[in-house]
This record gives sequence, C-alpha cells and structure tokens, in this order.
Amino acid sequence: MRILVFGLGALGTVYSCLLHNQGHEITGVDHPAVVEKVKEHGVRVTGIWGEHQAYLKQVVSKLEDMDESSYDLVIISVKSYETGEVAAMLKNQLSDYSYVLLAQNGYGNFESAARFLSPQKIILGRVIFGSETLEPGSARVTVIADDVMLGSPRNDIDMQVLNELARTFTQAGIPTRASDDIMRYVWGKVIYNSALNPLGAILEVPYGKLAEVSFSKELMDGIIEEIFEVLKAAGQSTLWENAESYRQDFYSRLLPSTAAHHASMLQDIQRGRKTEIDSLNGAVSKLGEQYGINTPINRFITLMLKAKEAMRLS
Amino acid sequence: MRILVFGLGALGTVYSCLLHNQGHEITGVDHPAVVEKVKEHGVRVTGIWGEHQAYLKQVVSKLEDMDESSYDLVIISVKSYETGEVAAMLKNQLSDYSYVLLAQNGYGNFESAARFLSPQKIILGRVIFGSETLEPGSARVTVIADDVMLGSPRNDIDMQVLNELARTFTQAGIPTRASDDIMRYVWGKVIYNSALNPLGAILEVPYGKLAEVSFSKELMDGIIEEIFEVLKAAGQSTLWENAESYRQDFYSRLLPSTAAHHASMLQDIQRGRKTEIDSLNGAVSKLGEQYGINTPINRFITLMLKAKEAMRLS
Repeated sequence: MRILVFGLGALGTVYSCLLHNQGHEITGVDHPAVVEKVKEHGVRVTGIWGEHQAYLKQVVSKLEDMDESSYDLVIISVKSYETGEVAAMLKNQLSDYSYVLLAQNGYGNFESAARFLSPQKIILGRVIFGSETLEPGSARVTVIADDVMLGSPRNDIDMQVLNELARTFTQAGIPTRASDDIMRYVWGKVIYNSALNPLGAILEVPYGKLAEVSFSKELMDGIIEEIFEVLKAAGQSTLWENAESYRQDFYSRLLPSTAAHHASMLQDIQRGRKTEIDSLNGAVSKLGEQYGINTPINRFITLMLKAKEAMRLS
Repeated sequence: MRILVFGLGALGTVYSCLLHNQGHEITGVDHPAVVEKVKEHGVRVTGIWGEHQAYLKQVVSKLEDMDESSYDLVIISVKSYETGEVAAMLKNQLSDYSYVLLAQNGYGNFESAARFLSPQKIILGRVIFGSETLEPGSARVTVIADDVMLGSPRNDIDMQVLNELARTFTQAGIPTRASDDIMRYVWGKVIYNSALNPLGAILEVPYGKLAEVSFSKELMDGIIEEIFEVLKAAGQSTLWENAESYRQDFYSRLLPSTAAHHASMLQDIQRGRKTEIDSLNGAVSKLGEQYGINTPINRFITLMLKAKEAMRLS
C-alpha cells in the first residue's frame, strides 16, 4: 500500500516505522525540524514491541513537496485540534485517496475532517496502546491496553475493507480489529480520558490519587454522569449499560490498572503545548448544548484546564 | 477592659498587643507551642503600624488555666472552621462575658458561634487589614484596605455600645467603625475572597493573572453571579446594587489594587493546613441549597479546592 502518515509524533512514528518494515510505501509529513531528524536517523521504535528502524520512502514538511499525490491510505496522527486544518490541506493537495484513518484522541475528529474530506472515506481508529516520543521520529511503546479498533462512524465502508485494513496493521505488528460500532469504542476512551486527564492535570497528581480522595471522586462521578446523559440524549450507546455500570468498571478495573499514570495534559501544559481538552470535556459540553443537556462540571473542568493552559502558555 | 483573645495568629497578635499597650488587661489563648513563645518574647507587631511589643497579663493553652473566667470582651481570632468548637469551649468555661467579637473570615461564623453563645452578645467584625505571622506571637501588618467594621448581625446590640467599642479599637491603633448593617460589609469580603482565593490557590497564580485570562475570568464572573443570586433569594443586600455593578467595581478597583497578592489558601495548602473554603464558596453553596438556588460553579470550586487540600494533607 502507498500510505501517507501526517504527523510523526509517537503514534505516527510507530505506524510509519512498522508499516514500512512490512513492505508498504510510506510518505511522512511533519514540521521541518522533525523531517530533518527523520531523514538523518529514520523513524525508530523501541519498547514492548521490540526495536525497529525504517528509512521512509519520503519525508516532507510541505504536501507540495510530495512525489505522489495519490494514496491508498492516509493516516492522520496530529493532535486532535489540528484535524480540521490538516484535512483542509489534504483536500487541496491530494489528487486521490482511498481512505483516511483518524487515529486521534477524543470526540469530534470525524466531524472536523468531514468538513473537507468525503465522510465515506473516513475511518476512525480507537488507539489505546501507549507510546511516547523520545526525540523527533523516535518513539517508545510503553503499554497496550487493548487492540486498536477501526470503523466507519456511519458504517459507510464495507466491513470487508475494514477487516482487511485491520489485518494489514496486525501483520505489521499493531494488533487491530474492525468494528461496525466504532463510536462505542471511541466514547469509551473519551469518557475515561475526560474523567481523569484534565483533573490529573489541574491537581498535578497521578490518576490513582484522584480516586483516593472523596472530593475528586465526586467530580469524576459528575463528569461521567453528565457524559452518559449527553450520550443518551444523542442516542449514542456505549459498551456500558449506564453511568453506574461504567463507574463500577472504572473504579474496579480501568483506573486501578493506570493508577501510576500521569495526565498527558499536564505534560502538554508544562511543555507549553496546547491540550486536547476541546475534544474531551469541551466536546462533551458542546454536544450537550446541541441536545439541550446541561453539563456544568464538564464545562468548569474545561474552563479551569484552559485557564491553566493559557497561564502557562503566556 | 478585661479582654480574652482566643487565637494568637496574626490577627490575635495584633489585637492583643495593641490593646494591651492601650492599658487593657489581656488574656491570650493558643496552642502550647505558641504560648511558650509568647511567654518568652511577648506578642510583637511590626509593619505599617510601627513596632510594638507586649507581655500579656496571662497566656494559656487551656481555658481551665485562666486566672479569671469573666471578661468584658472575648475576641475569637482562630480560623473560621474552628469557630463552633471554640464557642462551645467558651460556653463551658466562662462564668460571664459581655460581648464576643468574631474577627474571622467568611460567612457562617455568627451561625456557628450562636449555637453555643447568646446571639445578643455576638459582634461580627469585618477585618480587611492584612497581617501575617512571622513566628508564633509575632505579626507584621502589611496593608490596610479599609477600617475594621463592627456590628450585630440582627442589630441586637445598641449602636452606642458598638460605637464605643469601635472607639476603643481605634484608640489602640486599629481604625474601626460600627455599622447597623454589618452583613453588607461581611458579604463584600466574602464575595471578593470567594472569587479570587480558591481559584488563585488551584491555579497557583497571583490574583492579577486571574483577570488576564478569559477562562478564569469566566469562572470568577460565574462565582460572583451565583453569590448575588443566593443573596437575592436570602433577602441580603450588599454594598453593590447587583452582580453587574459588583463586577465593575471588582475589575476596575478591588482586584487591580491586590493584583500581586497570592491566595492565602495556597499558603495554607502548602503548609499542610486546612483552608477556609467552607466559610466562602462552600458556605455560598450551602446557603444556596437552603434557598433553592443552584450554585454549580461555587460547588465545583469548593470540590476542586478540597481535593487539592486533601491531597496535600494526606
């Protein structure tokens, strides 16, 4: 396959490296500083999936510089708040593409991309293996919670196509399955992240601490409750029957297994980067407004996190 | 006057020292470590009101050890969350007292004390000079925003008595006036503190920064809006006509003059001490419940601050 990977952060590095080594033709896109590093050292992967290195077919910082403008697959692996912008660039610069995989966190990526790209070609990925950037083009895979799930939000894409794509990724070393109900999986990750990530970043404690203190627990319970109310109004089911059964799973299984984890948003803020709050609690609030559901706690968490972000950025 | 000062923190140190030097008989109460220091060095005041030192008539760590059990005035200058407990102790140990002055921050001190002491003897003080403890029994007066205001919340006490008491304090060097509408003044300080103190402590920035960022400004606006709604429902007027006129005063005058100020709650948390949140945003929420007014932002701020407090205490 001819594959374009837009964004060579930790995720893009893993995908481009492993797919290249499986025999695919990869073009990578990122900022000039990253491109320079990747041209010199290739993309490199370490961690639980072993040591890998690959020199990609081409690495560019501008789409105009690509040798080809037609791809079998485009993987967008930038931050969620850049999805729309990247989709617009792709629309202008690609002559043809079969499918676009959105591998980002949060809710709203499909909606952002579909403003510029054909919804019938957009695949959502729910990625819950953990990876971190060691230096530009070099990533370590730290943990794998579950297979990557792929799907078309409105089931516009034949399951056979999705299954084949999942097989391609799995063969490259990234365990992947296709689902005809991808939004259930996407929301599972959104709920988990919305409950823990901003609160962990605001209070600057690892996830486990948030469940030990009644006051933060009450906030997490409220966040979860509101999300389930919004999803109910939106007619979106999840992998859990209701907020109560989610909370049981959350406190007994999901949270304990990541108790030592630190909020990625805190790292973002400390490094002066924007966070993905707008595609988590911010997206929940927005969706709530759309369906007439009040989400005060998600709104305040969003405001508080954005205040902290803005103060550290300025 | 025979005066008992319960709590020799910054405020109690200032009152006991200046009142002693004006010829009053002062008994001080605090923890044994403080008592020991004060017996050795006296109480000392520095800062904008000059240098003062006084060896009090008696300093005790237990009320049982007092030489006298009858006072013309009791000044309670502990933290607001200790008001009830101290009032109960006084009820048990004092044979007689004319008046009790509550000099603490926040809303709810009168209500807490009145569970044990006669409401007709309770005077509320609104203290907005700034003082800090240098070491036990030693305080520095840093700033004076306005005269101390005294009053009886339900106007149970003759204004002549209050005016005389105000004169006594003023003569001792603490500019003080009496008011027949003390709750307006108390609430003025509660609103200001509720808007700034917990938010400054959670985000760890000086007050000025909170007004520079739209997200924290939105939170402060919400806090203020909710308080005015609760006060309206409770039939409590303030020195401002409504939330809008308060906000104008707040952003143009009150906040700019304390822009460099750091939240006292942050200091409390960093030193492993409890904060006074329950008599600020927490009290607003509780009063809101009583009058059927929703206060989601004040509730949220209270939970967030208490989470931070609990995490640092544990």
